[in-house]
Order: sequence, then C-alpha cells, then structure tokens
Amino acid sequence: MSPQQPRNAPPQAEQPKQPIPGVRHLVAVGSGKGGVGKTTVAVNLAISLARLGRKVGLLDADVYGPNVPLMMGTQETPLGANDRIRPIESFGVKLMSIGFMNPGDKPLVWRGPMLHSVIQQFLRGVDWGELDYLVIDLPPGTGDVALSLIQSAPLSGAVIVTTPSDVSLEDARKAINMFAQVRVPVLGLVENMSYLIAPGSGERIDVFGHGGGKRTAEKMNVPFLGELALNPAVRIGGDTGRPISTRDSSDPEAAPFRELALRIEARCQEEQKAGPKITVED
Amino acid sequence: MSPQQPRNAPPQAEQPKQPIPGVRHLVAVGSGKGGVGKTTVAVNLAISLARLGRKVGLLDADVYGPNVPLMMGTQETPLGANDRIRPIESFGVKLMSIGFMNPGDKPLVWRGPMLHSVIQQFLRGVDWGELDYLVIDLPPGTGDVALSLIQSAPLSGAVIVTTPSDVSLEDARKAINMFAQVRVPVLGLVENMSYLIAPGSGERIDVFGHGGGKRTAEKMNVPFLGELALNPAVRIGGDTGRPISTRDSSDPEAAPFRELALRIEARCQEEQKAGPKITVED
Repeated sequence: MSPQQPRNAPPQAEQPKQPIPGVRHLVAVGSGKGGVGKTTVAVNLAISLARLGRKVGLLDADVYGPNVPLMMGTQETPLGANDRIRPIESFGVKLMSIGFMNPGDKPLVWRGPMLHSVIQQFLRGVDWGELDYLVIDLPPGTGDVALSLIQSAPLSGAVIVTTPSDVSLEDARKAINMFAQVRVPVLGLVENMSYLIAPGSGERIDVFGHGGGKRTAEKMNVPFLGELALNPAVRIGGDTGRPISTRDSSDPEAAPFRELALRIEARCQEEQKAGPKITVED
Repeated sequence: MSPQQPRNAPPQAEQPKQPIPGVRHLVAVGSGKGGVGKTTVAVNLAISLARLGRKVGLLDADVYGPNVPLMMGTQETPLGANDRIRPIESFGVKLMSIGFMNPGDKPLVWRGPMLHSVIQQFLRGVDWGELDYLVIDLPPGTGDVALSLIQSAPLSGAVIVTTPSDVSLEDARKAINMFAQVRVPVLGLVENMSYLIAPGSGERIDVFGHGGGKRTAEKMNVPFLGELALNPAVRIGGDTGRPISTRDSSDPEAAPFRELALRIEARCQEEQKAGPKITVED
C-alpha cells in the first residue's frame, strides 16, 4: 500500500450514500491543521444560518477536542426519546456533541471503530427533525474519523478553514485533496486569522501572514469564501459561550459570519443544481 | 465500555518499555488542541538544546500534519544504511518525519495499525546514534497515534503546549489527564501565543487571553514552564524553514526558547532522580 493510495472505503461507502431523512444540506467544516478556527467558523456559520431563518443543526464530530458545547454555552445531557437521541438546542441551533457524553477534563480514549459507530449514531440516531442545514464540525486533518464520516455521509460539500501561515496552507492543500479523492465537492476555502486590528492603535498586523488563502484557492481551483480577521471579540465569544454571531445582524463584528453564511448557502445551491458528478474511474 | 475508562493498552505496553539504545532522554511535546504551536515549540526546543551543546534528535510523529520538514527547511529523502534508516540532519538536529516519506500535498490516508507500525520504525529502526535528547512532536489530542506512542516509548516526560484561550485550556487538561493515566510524567505546561506586541506601536495585545496557562498548571499540579509571545518573527522562522532559535544566542527573540530548553533539561534531571514511580493500582 503506497501512501498515495486512498485507503479502502468501508462497505457502506461503496453503496450510494443514504440521505438523512428531513435534512436538506449536509455541510462539513474541516481543516488540515487544528487550531485554525474550524470550530469557531462552524459555530458561527450555524448560528448565522439560523439567524437568516434557516432550520439548522450542528454536529460536533471533533471527537478528541469537542469544543462546541463550551462555545455554544451549554453542558446539558441529551435525552433519549422513542429510540432516538433528542439534540440540545442553543441559540436556535440543534446540537449534538461527544462533549455532552464525556464532559469535564477526562480524555476520550476510544479507538477508531468505536468512534465510527458513535459518529454514525450522531448522524442517523439523533432526532434532527426537518433541517435546511446540518453543519458538521469535522476533526482537523485527514485521519480515520474525518475520512469515515465523509465517506458515509451524503455531504453537499465541505468548507475548508485555514490561516494564512504556510504551515496551515500546507495542511489545507492535503485536506482539499482528500475531499477530491472521495469526490466530495469543496464549497470553498476560508482564510481565518487573516489579520489583527490592534484594539488601541488601530494598527493592522498580519500575524500569520496574509493572502495565502486566496492564492491557494486559486491555485487549487476551489472557490475562495473570504477572509476573517483575528478578532479577540470572536475568541472571547467562543470562550464565554456567546458566539459573536449571536449579536444583532447590524453588528459589524457579526457581519463577516453572516456574509460567509450567505456565500455558503449560494454554493450549496450551485452544487445541488450541478447534481452528482459522473466520474469515470481510471 | 464507558468513556471514562482508558482503552486497553497494547500488549507491549504491559511489559517494561524497552529503552532505545544510545538515547538518554525521550521528551514528548504534546497538546490537547492543534494549532497552538506544538511543532514550533518542538522544533525550537530541539534546536535550542543542540545550541547548548547537546546531541539532539527530533521525531515528527504528527502523522496527519507533519510540518517539521517545512519548518526545518529540508525535504531530503532519508536513505537506508545497514537495515536502518539514516536520519536527515538540519541545524545540528537529527530528523525523521513521515513528511519525508509522503512529501507534497497528498493527504496521508493510512489507518491506525499502519501508523502504529511506522511510528515504531521511526523510534527503533532509525539510526539515531548517541543522543542526549530525542524530542518527539506528538499529534495533537488524545487519539490513537499519540496514545500508542506514549504507551510504547520509554518517555522521560511530556511537555504540554497550550494557548491562553479557554478552548485550548479545556483540551490541555484532557491531555494532562491522558499522560497521568498512562503514568508518563508531565515535565510542564507552556503557554504559547500569550500576548502580541504590535510591531508598529509596541501595544501589548492579549489576543487569546492571558494567564490561563499558569492558572491551569497550578490547578492541575504540574510545573509551569513559562509564557511565549505570539511573535510574528517566530511564525516567519517556521514558514521559511529557518526557526528563530537558529539565531545567535544573544538574540532577544531566540532567548525565550533557550530558557525553555534549560528549564526542560532541569525537569528531565529531576524526573530521572525521582526514578520510576511505584503505583498501586486500585
């Protein structure tokens, strides 16, 4: 087995992927590298879509670092109802996270097959109801959990988050190639932490460099979905369980996420019109 | 199986861990969350130790995001010699990384058991020679690869890297608990990206908050190894393959890593004196 070969798909991926009843669009948010703001984007995207009037769910599949409960300000335990798990609701978004099952500071020390089955439960055993969007916060990278999930879920597409640093872009290119290998459309690339505005002086600082996201998107022929500033208010929103996108839609700090949500919505519709691509294997 | 239970150790972890001939101290650099600067710390720690006159190796075990070759400015392919792999040398540090085997933008799509065997090869099949320190850049989090490695390698201890953000600290606590569960001493916690000095105005900005690393270390009863600024020069050093610690030892931007190296060296000696702890299982 050469490192260039995709690993064998699990059996269910070779059959047509079963849709999730009631769910219109499944949007995965992924990244090559961790710590680039993937969960921040997923959380604020989900809330922004809900504020636009869409019915939204958020599945936290980042099994080893499930930060969605902290960011969404909830630590409730989901209850079962008629053989299904009822999601937690926060800021108008239906939530499911392994963080609800394993709260506190204990590390999650399950191996791959167990995780795969939990993720399947989260996708199909949760009472999501009617949803316009189910946003999935993938684990970073191209590991087992991410790959199993994107091979088994009928994704509308994936959003890739990166910072402008070369190290993050190197890993983002790998993630884009992984989605291409398994034929999941890339809805686009987001450059997060693009620049920082110093709160006192207003000086603009390119902490992690600048512009690499756009250049990488062009080079790899995927849409560029925009830049998001390294805004301490966004981080504080996540750390305190009140994401920035919960602010009024006229708030200038919430606006970039609202615009991102609109762009991703437009991309989902484009991909839906394009329909499933027929690919001839070589 | 409850999520609180550690998974079963692989058989080799139940026997005494075999030392790696010629290697005095194995120091793992880990994090709960990705993107907190774990690889930056590992790379600059290895170079700083080498500049202090120590014999140093650096094993990049971050299999899904092997950024060590980029940061160390090398893309050579290691060659075999007498049934062993000869490491690449850069800035006086012997290197091995899966990035050397799988260069470019292709995602690595191996599953757990394959990765476990590659990591074992890297530990024991590489001609490390005589080393004072073998620094291991772990994958972030508490996943399969990290756990297999720390269960099979005779580690002197682990350094945990975090940022001051609550989300990163939440994951750091999980990582510290994972090392405690498998009885690997935590050499200490490093708070990275503690603050940013605006290059124009000199304004200090606490981008990710401040002080949470020290508080977390105290609360969890592990040593605090210090704060590292969010210094764009450090990021540029990594992105361009010339880490900041390669600068002259009098350089004020290289100094924090030199001090960190001295502190970690002192902690390794303390742990060695303390000897292996006898733990009574309950």
